[in-house]
Amino acid sequence: MTTDMRLSDEQRDREEELVQVVLSSFDGTPDARLKELMQGVVRHLHAFLRDVRLTEREWQQAIEFLTAVGHITDDRRQEFILLSDTLGASMQTIAINNEAYGDATEATVFGPFFVEDSPRVELGGDIAGSASGQPCWVEGTVRDADGQPVAGARIEVWEADEDGFYDVQYTDDRVAGRAHLFSDDDGSFRFWAVTPTPYPIPHDGPVGAMLAATGRSPMRASHLHFMVDAPGCRTLVTHIFVRGDELLASDSVFGVKDSLVKDFVEQPAGTPTPDGRALGDVSWSRVAFDIVLAPEQQ
Amino acid sequence: MTTDMRLSDEQRDREEELVQVVLSSFDGTPDARLKELMQGVVRHLHAFLRDVRLTEREWQQAIEFLTAVGHITDDRRQEFILLSDTLGASMQTIAINNEAYGDATEATVFGPFFVEDSPRVELGGDIAGSASGQPCWVEGTVRDADGQPVAGARIEVWEADEDGFYDVQYTDDRVAGRAHLFSDDDGSFRFWAVTPTPYPIPHDGPVGAMLAATGRSPMRASHLHFMVDAPGCRTLVTHIFVRGDELLASDSVFGVKDSLVKDFVEQPAGTPTPDGRALGDVSWSRVAFDIVLAPEQQ
Repeated sequence: MTTDMRLSDEQRDREEELVQVVLSSFDGTPDARLKELMQGVVRHLHAFLRDVRLTEREWQQAIEFLTAVGHITDDRRQEFILLSDTLGASMQTIAINNEAYGDATEATVFGPFFVEDSPRVELGGDIAGSASGQPCWVEGTVRDADGQPVAGARIEVWEADEDGFYDVQYTDDRVAGRAHLFSDDDGSFRFWAVTPTPYPIPHDGPVGAMLAATGRSPMRASHLHFMVDAPGCRTLVTHIFVRGDELLASDSVFGVKDSLVKDFVEQPAGTPTPDGRALGDVSWSRVAFDIVLAPEQQ
Repeated sequence: MTTDMRLSDEQRDREEELVQVVLSSFDGTPDARLKELMQGVVRHLHAFLRDVRLTEREWQQAIEFLTAVGHITDDRRQEFILLSDTLGASMQTIAINNEAYGDATEATVFGPFFVEDSPRVELGGDIAGSASGQPCWVEGTVRDADGQPVAGARIEVWEADEDGFYDVQYTDDRVAGRAHLFSDDDGSFRFWAVTPTPYPIPHDGPVGAMLAATGRSPMRASHLHFMVDAPGCRTLVTHIFVRGDELLASDSVFGVKDSLVKDFVEQPAGTPTPDGRALGDVSWSRVAFDIVLAPEQQ
């Protein structure tokens, strides 16, 4: 930006002095990290205001927008997370905290739909429960960065049903399309789920209005969530995506990484299943996802 | 910051690529200004996250903080404005939009307590109504940047009572400590108010918690609000402050400007009043405030 170039010295001095005054108001913060964070907020917030030369009317609109984001947020709807997601801030925070490490599996956004205390399923079990959709066989191995199998890794899996809704988006307290299991002694895991399908993030609120006003789609590329935890390893929060999904390049929360796009191979009805499960006259799919965990950060 | 220096090329590439992807997601925004604003938000937000290396726990805390700000905000309480005020963002927006112009009176923060449709008082009238406090005679002249008197300027005035509360902070729908009047044919104005006293911004919410955690005071320096409007002139939103107030250097919303600090001269009980008003056995104060309006921006 070159807007500063047309400002008088007096005007620029006023603006810069104000930044300094606000920064120094945080000098007495007892916690050093909190001080760094608040001064960082001030520095970047004021740089934004000065860079775009925010008008007073735009400031008012920003206040109204944030107020609307606050008012739609409740125990079941987290519009601030949606806002962070759609600005790429969630994904950037994930990137910052999951630094590239050898061939460790890349992390992606956590999203607002994880729930603690998911049901446990055994290896080969079905995480779908009552969630509708095409059956999908998922298998792979958890290894550490040295290539050694990780036994007993806790694998949390969650996903939307074929109508595009997670269980918590229904009002009937169902638990479906989510579970946890543990990797086998050789690090392997396998389970039934449903083939991921695309869905929009909730877009009937202010974040949806922002996406509409900026010509962006609320759609998420089809995906299956994973969170993988094992002693001595960095917790991995990620998804796998479906190769060929036309939404891969426009995922509304910027979660797609090339390395996380997998082949979900269609299996015609009647194709024998890996575990002998009888699916009747329906097609199914299968996907392989081998996971590499980075070491725990010190 | 030098944190970037310890990042691997791969890590830096991932972070920078993400910024570019998010920026380009707004390329199709139909409104050019909205596109500029959103891309500005993205650029500075991501710079902040990368600069401070925000942790996932800190991100979560930020989400919780904003959620709390949203939930305490209602028709009578605007915590997002308090947040903007206490980060100096309101004052910076004012500074940006009220560029230094000759000896035009400086602007300062609007605050959350202005109310439309205030009662009208005549020149020399009393804006205090039922608001408690020491009587204060305020007088001055409105001029334009060429030094010409501005007749008929609309002057809105509002202030807290001596207990530190604005009328709208009470629940009884009172209207007090606020009014509007018009400057005389020679640009002069005069009215009774109450001598400003210091008060805290509402600090029982998340913004108050932020101030406490950072060792900052919620107190505002004593002030009287003005908004002055006249055809052909830039609307002036400002305060006058009380010289000698020990809070001038630590105003919680960064509203104080040296040029806005005025002498509120104490008048012992019994001192004759300018308009002959009988005040009985109470002291009063008087202050002069000459206003210069910048020309309207084209």
